[in-house]
Amino acid sequence: MNIRFYNARILTMESRELIKGELWTSDDRISFIGTPSEEEISKESFDRQIDCEGNVLMPGFKNAHTHSAMTFSRSVADSYELNDWLYKAIFPMEAKLNDSYTYTFSKLAFAEYVKSGITADFDMYFHLDGIVKASNEVGMRTVFCSSANDFGGIDRLEDEYLKYNDAGELIGYKLGIHAEYTTSKENIAKAVEVAHKYRAPMFTHISETKSENLGCIERYGMTPVELFDKMGFYDYGGGGFHCVWFNENDRRIFSEKGLYAVFNAASNLKLASGVPDVSSFIGDGVSFGIGTDGAGSNNSLNMFKEMFLCATQSNILRDKSYSVDPFDVLKAACCTGAKIMGLDDCDILAKGKKADIIMIDMKDPSMQPESVFVDNLVFSGDTSVVKMTMINGKILYENGSFTTVDIDSLYEEARIKAGEIRA
Amino acid sequence: MNIRFYNARILTMESRELIKGELWTSDDRISFIGTPSEEEISKESFDRQIDCEGNVLMPGFKNAHTHSAMTFSRSVADSYELNDWLYKAIFPMEAKLNDSYTYTFSKLAFAEYVKSGITADFDMYFHLDGIVKASNEVGMRTVFCSSANDFGGIDRLEDEYLKYNDAGELIGYKLGIHAEYTTSKENIAKAVEVAHKYRAPMFTHISETKSENLGCIERYGMTPVELFDKMGFYDYGGGGFHCVWFNENDRRIFSEKGLYAVFNAASNLKLASGVPDVSSFIGDGVSFGIGTDGAGSNNSLNMFKEMFLCATQSNILRDKSYSVDPFDVLKAACCTGAKIMGLDDCDILAKGKKADIIMIDMKDPSMQPESVFVDNLVFSGDTSVVKMTMINGKILYENGSFTTVDIDSLYEEARIKAGEIRA
Repeated sequence: MNIRFYNARILTMESRELIKGELWTSDDRISFIGTPSEEEISKESFDRQIDCEGNVLMPGFKNAHTHSAMTFSRSVADSYELNDWLYKAIFPMEAKLNDSYTYTFSKLAFAEYVKSGITADFDMYFHLDGIVKASNEVGMRTVFCSSANDFGGIDRLEDEYLKYNDAGELIGYKLGIHAEYTTSKENIAKAVEVAHKYRAPMFTHISETKSENLGCIERYGMTPVELFDKMGFYDYGGGGFHCVWFNENDRRIFSEKGLYAVFNAASNLKLASGVPDVSSFIGDGVSFGIGTDGAGSNNSLNMFKEMFLCATQSNILRDKSYSVDPFDVLKAACCTGAKIMGLDDCDILAKGKKADIIMIDMKDPSMQPESVFVDNLVFSGDTSVVKMTMINGKILYENGSFTTVDIDSLYEEARIKAGEIRA
Repeated sequence: MNIRFYNARILTMESRELIKGELWTSDDRISFIGTPSEEEISKESFDRQIDCEGNVLMPGFKNAHTHSAMTFSRSVADSYELNDWLYKAIFPMEAKLNDSYTYTFSKLAFAEYVKSGITADFDMYFHLDGIVKASNEVGMRTVFCSSANDFGGIDRLEDEYLKYNDAGELIGYKLGIHAEYTTSKENIAKAVEVAHKYRAPMFTHISETKSENLGCIERYGMTPVELFDKMGFYDYGGGGFHCVWFNENDRRIFSEKGLYAVFNAASNLKLASGVPDVSSFIGDGVSFGIGTDGAGSNNSLNMFKEMFLCATQSNILRDKSYSVDPFDVLKAACCTGAKIMGLDDCDILAKGKKADIIMIDMKDPSMQPESVFVDNLVFSGDTSVVKMTMINGKILYENGSFTTVDIDSLYEEARIKAGEIRA
């Protein structure tokens, strides 16, 4: 499938400037960006030509930490305290899950992703075969992150790593554990062994809450980052999710080792976990990505909300407006997220890169009158400005319609299955 | 025009429960809510019958503090420090404004309002005739709040009050001043005289920044709330915008006098002003509304963003999840905002109330699978869930289209005029 997008403005994300011109895709890749001559155009045979009418093409958002299948738990037990929420609401529901459930509930999340411009997700969950099926049907790019912990998964780590890194071009798998507080030192060490064998990066929930940090310090006399660093967890790179309670030394370790922080600011607000100080990470040279966390805790899967929070919350902590450059936030959302997941070809728009592209509707009132595009997108955009989403060269969402999802049937299926899980 | 909405679920906002049934409008009013008999239906003659397909009808959002015409300044000077932003960017642009400009720039904001479910705005600006024209053309319900200060407006206060409260059914006007820090005690006293003459409530920017509070304490030995209270400013009710730096006594005064706080959380984050602790206002019995502030400081005009912030930011200040009930936030956005503006018939959905109604698209993925509607709307919704907006019985926006605005012409007009203003 060769598609020509013309009359476009293009934000490649190599800079914050918009380029006027065309973007062509050939199967799963970008084959051209620029202003072609009439002769160059006439030599091509396009399957489809799309007039962008001046709208902006840019790389899709990478949801760098999520639990997609948790859509079943959205808005179900918002008023519960964290412990009750987990033990009385979430865990009993999760105990009922199987691949058929994770298939449906992930598919619902993927519909929300493509509608809101998310082209890849870094997904920590279980019953992964159901999620693979949903990814392949929708056309969603999913990289799993292991959620191994003392309740299971450590012994499956190597098998899953091999299986899901060989599960097709839309699927990947990264090693990791759920968190320090759910995983014994022995089990962390076992996981580290696998990472060392494959010289692979590792990821985990880390310093999400103050009590998590205090517990780790009580157990081991050091922060989670210091513990993982000491145990060789990060010898081949990787990173952590949430990173709310990092101290200066934690940030130094992340910076020196080239590790990635992933922020989940809306979930942290909703669960009263805290406010990640994005500006201090930037100041200390830590690269970061942005994720939505799962629908049970957030409750939306909305990268615009996350970007706004990442771009503004440090202002309060620092008593300074514009303490974070919105372009840094957009780079995190579009580019760094791809690097975190190992999707090196999905970061920017350039010839030869994967065609994971979204179109921003400049005719939404929130984008008018036009001024500084990047600032406007981060501070003023929301999901209604996403006009088209393409993953791996395939258009999955366009002008309000899904091309690979029968959305009404999906809602009905999710309604029935959510009823079973919530019963 | 008589319209029948059937197959609806209705959130009247009298409770948090959805009612299955029908809603009928007759001209500008709601004529029926409930489950009619076939006979009742057959007796009516409807101009239009709309199958809601199970989607939710609810009162529109009331944007209880904004400067609509400031769309010209959106994303123009985000990186400026507050003083430079005001004196080098905003004030020089505002000096060029006239009614023709405020007409176009307000009309653009009104398009954003109706697309995102806002059915009334409490608008503090100048060159009001242009804004009246835009309101009447679009069908937007606008209540002005005086922005009088030492640079002008105090002497016009009474004339404006009389003129704009007699300017048609969509327009209203409330007395007020811009802020303590821009208005001398003598001028505040003059404004209070007018309010006393008409026994009218008064409004003002208040305690938006820490330095504003400190300045007032230095000048008068008391907080702005205490000063205004002492000067009789609030003898006939009213309230204040922002209310970030209220102390306990300020909240006590607001509670005892039945004054309204209006929160503008996104603007406060972006300008590093602070975080309003919504839960402390609720705890102290202060009624509150929610506003977007202007597009220059926010930069969006998005009540969903504001609701999410109002519902979650106190969690961090109180170290407690669900510290604010999302239904309290939704009541503020839909109902209390109306009371603040004096629009007593625009608060809830009930027979005889004004037909200021929005339809929420339950087939947006962010609303699925269905669970607790109010929680889901506040925590997970964004502007893309607004399917229809009706003001004063007239549908202004439906399924992506505007009925009273030629949106492409408006964008072109705004582009040209913004270029002139920004030059």
